[in-house]
Amino acid sequence: MSTNQVQIFDTTLRDGEQVPGCKLNTGQKLIIAEQLDLLGVDIIEAGFPVSSPGDFKSVEEISKLVKNATVCGLTRAHKNDIKVAAEALQYAKRPRIHTGIGTSESHIKFKFNTTPEKIIERAVDAVTYAKSFVEDIEFYAEDAGRTDNEYLARVCEAVIKAGATVLNIPDTTGYCLPEEYGAKMKYLRENVKGIENVILSCHCHNDLGLATANAIAGVQNGARQIECTINGIGERAGNTALEEVVMIMKQHPYLNLDTNINTQMLFGISKLVQESMGMIVQPNKAVVGDNAFAHSSGIHQDGVIKNRETYEIMDPADVGVTESSIVLTARSGRAALAYRAKNVGYELTKDQLDALYPEFLKYADQNKEVDDNGIHQLMEMSKVLL
Amino acid sequence: MSTNQVQIFDTTLRDGEQVPGCKLNTGQKLIIAEQLDLLGVDIIEAGFPVSSPGDFKSVEEISKLVKNATVCGLTRAHKNDIKVAAEALQYAKRPRIHTGIGTSESHIKFKFNTTPEKIIERAVDAVTYAKSFVEDIEFYAEDAGRTDNEYLARVCEAVIKAGATVLNIPDTTGYCLPEEYGAKMKYLRENVKGIENVILSCHCHNDLGLATANAIAGVQNGARQIECTINGIGERAGNTALEEVVMIMKQHPYLNLDTNINTQMLFGISKLVQESMGMIVQPNKAVVGDNAFAHSSGIHQDGVIKNRETYEIMDPADVGVTESSIVLTARSGRAALAYRAKNVGYELTKDQLDALYPEFLKYADQNKEVDDNGIHQLMEMSKVLL
Repeated sequence: MSTNQVQIFDTTLRDGEQVPGCKLNTGQKLIIAEQLDLLGVDIIEAGFPVSSPGDFKSVEEISKLVKNATVCGLTRAHKNDIKVAAEALQYAKRPRIHTGIGTSESHIKFKFNTTPEKIIERAVDAVTYAKSFVEDIEFYAEDAGRTDNEYLARVCEAVIKAGATVLNIPDTTGYCLPEEYGAKMKYLRENVKGIENVILSCHCHNDLGLATANAIAGVQNGARQIECTINGIGERAGNTALEEVVMIMKQHPYLNLDTNINTQMLFGISKLVQESMGMIVQPNKAVVGDNAFAHSSGIHQDGVIKNRETYEIMDPADVGVTESSIVLTARSGRAALAYRAKNVGYELTKDQLDALYPEFLKYADQNKEVDDNGIHQLMEMSKVLL
Repeated sequence: MSTNQVQIFDTTLRDGEQVPGCKLNTGQKLIIAEQLDLLGVDIIEAGFPVSSPGDFKSVEEISKLVKNATVCGLTRAHKNDIKVAAEALQYAKRPRIHTGIGTSESHIKFKFNTTPEKIIERAVDAVTYAKSFVEDIEFYAEDAGRTDNEYLARVCEAVIKAGATVLNIPDTTGYCLPEEYGAKMKYLRENVKGIENVILSCHCHNDLGLATANAIAGVQNGARQIECTINGIGERAGNTALEEVVMIMKQHPYLNLDTNINTQMLFGISKLVQESMGMIVQPNKAVVGDNAFAHSSGIHQDGVIKNRETYEIMDPADVGVTESSIVLTARSGRAALAYRAKNVGYELTKDQLDALYPEFLKYADQNKEVDDNGIHQLMEMSKVLL
């Protein structure tokens, strides 16, 4: 593995499923897990086994099914959580236990009602115990985004000694700005003994719309794993969107960061997750939204018809979208009207187009969108071809 | 005006409306414009007057209606566009003409089929002509995100001399990373004569999910206007979301950046725009999504019940949401179950809770979400109170 390879840790089935109204049954989870494995994600977080019998069963079945990816189960820093997770993961080819504890002042004081030193002890105990079951142990320092860097570095050093292989630095509340989150990763890289032997992981939440930017800032500063979900679903405003970080790395070759993702599957898997979870993405969602490659203003349409790259930085086919579309509205110009009219069989001369255009605008001011049928109607009404 | 005041330029009614399937009529636009004025946006981009008779009328009516905000009309660098925009804006208390031209190699070569020097001439001519109608002239260097900085600086210097008051530096294709967009602003601040007399403006697109982060990088590097839309709607994957950048600045006082926005109106105006445009936001949309303040995992619910700030960095009331919600699913823990049961009248002892919890998990594994009715059913079935 090249040092510039970024591991994609998909948590659609764990953090993504932690969403009001979108619980999946085991069958649905298995279908998604199989697709994620084909998509090329490196790790599938399959669930939180101790949380319910249904979740346990899902993690167990996914462990049996998945061929390539590491399968991961979440736990708190409790012995029973860890034991149950190890049981659920027993059939996995590459099992990983993901354990951890809150490290911010707010978590230590209000959630655990304890001291920073006691938190380190509990963290070390959890990692040590998990290590008795499997080799690959990821540790999360919950609310790391609001944790003092110096204390965070001490926690990291302690759990590395105890056997952690991956360190997850979550911005649990989605508060960090990208430069701040990047600086945190840089600080850990420079101040934690043994850091060169483990993988630093980004886990960002989207409460202020920054989950994608923060994860990218993380990998620019030395992290080599991104935790993310299809469509950016997850607790509250969700997590980093897998499709966004993957396409950012792909479209910016100078970053020199690679993933194993087969990007042409992105659009299809986005639809699968939308349908099985009943969690739609908005039309203006980056990369996978229905309008992501649709051009409707006259200025843009004109540019795209002349040369696609004027307004498109990605080839829609690269993410599995058949083609970008020129949508006719009252914002469209003559070039778009001519283009779409030609598609349905009318080759217009310049004079015919000039005569048709004002009629088109009137029609489009009344109707939101002019589809192929609308074009036929318009040709009929306007009689420009007669 | 303090130097740390960031102008909010709302383009919901222009770039936001440039979306397949969401054309508004003039009446709907007037309702939104009035709400934007109350919300406290500094500039309302009301439309692109030359594009259609409907758009002309909307800009004219909005100009008459708006009390506080500057009203702005978009044009290309064409005399007729500018003349028509000036006509549409004649009743505005504070009119602004927004004119410009593409400056990237791709735009110069493929869209305009001309030379960089000719583009500067056309830019200067457009600004000079617009200045004969109104004082406040914003110039956009379309595709500035992919324009060479040195050439961009020359364009900016020329249009400032011609009378531009605001310079819009659009990342038209949504390609820039935050550090790159921020560096562009910094370069212009340091290399354009007269830049201290104008306002630099961020206009970012969301094709890679970075529109919000890029706009924030812009204002951190000296820009003092952000162009944005309610819900982040707009061409393709949309624009910077107004509610996100406003809340980022509000929740990070150390940035020392203020806006005039009355944040408590954000949720209401988001719903208004969703309903009138038929453009829904996804549940996991930052700040205004239905799940933005909903907690469903057991770990999070437990934390929030102990102390809200454990998992919330914003008070929901600050954006007009009545309260954060504790949603019961199979991911919920005992604390959440006790909390919600108490809300509907059952004060459970620890033993009762222990007896009820496994029943609850079975019920929740079958049903996606347990609502108040479900709690009553569960109490009935489980008989823990008998």
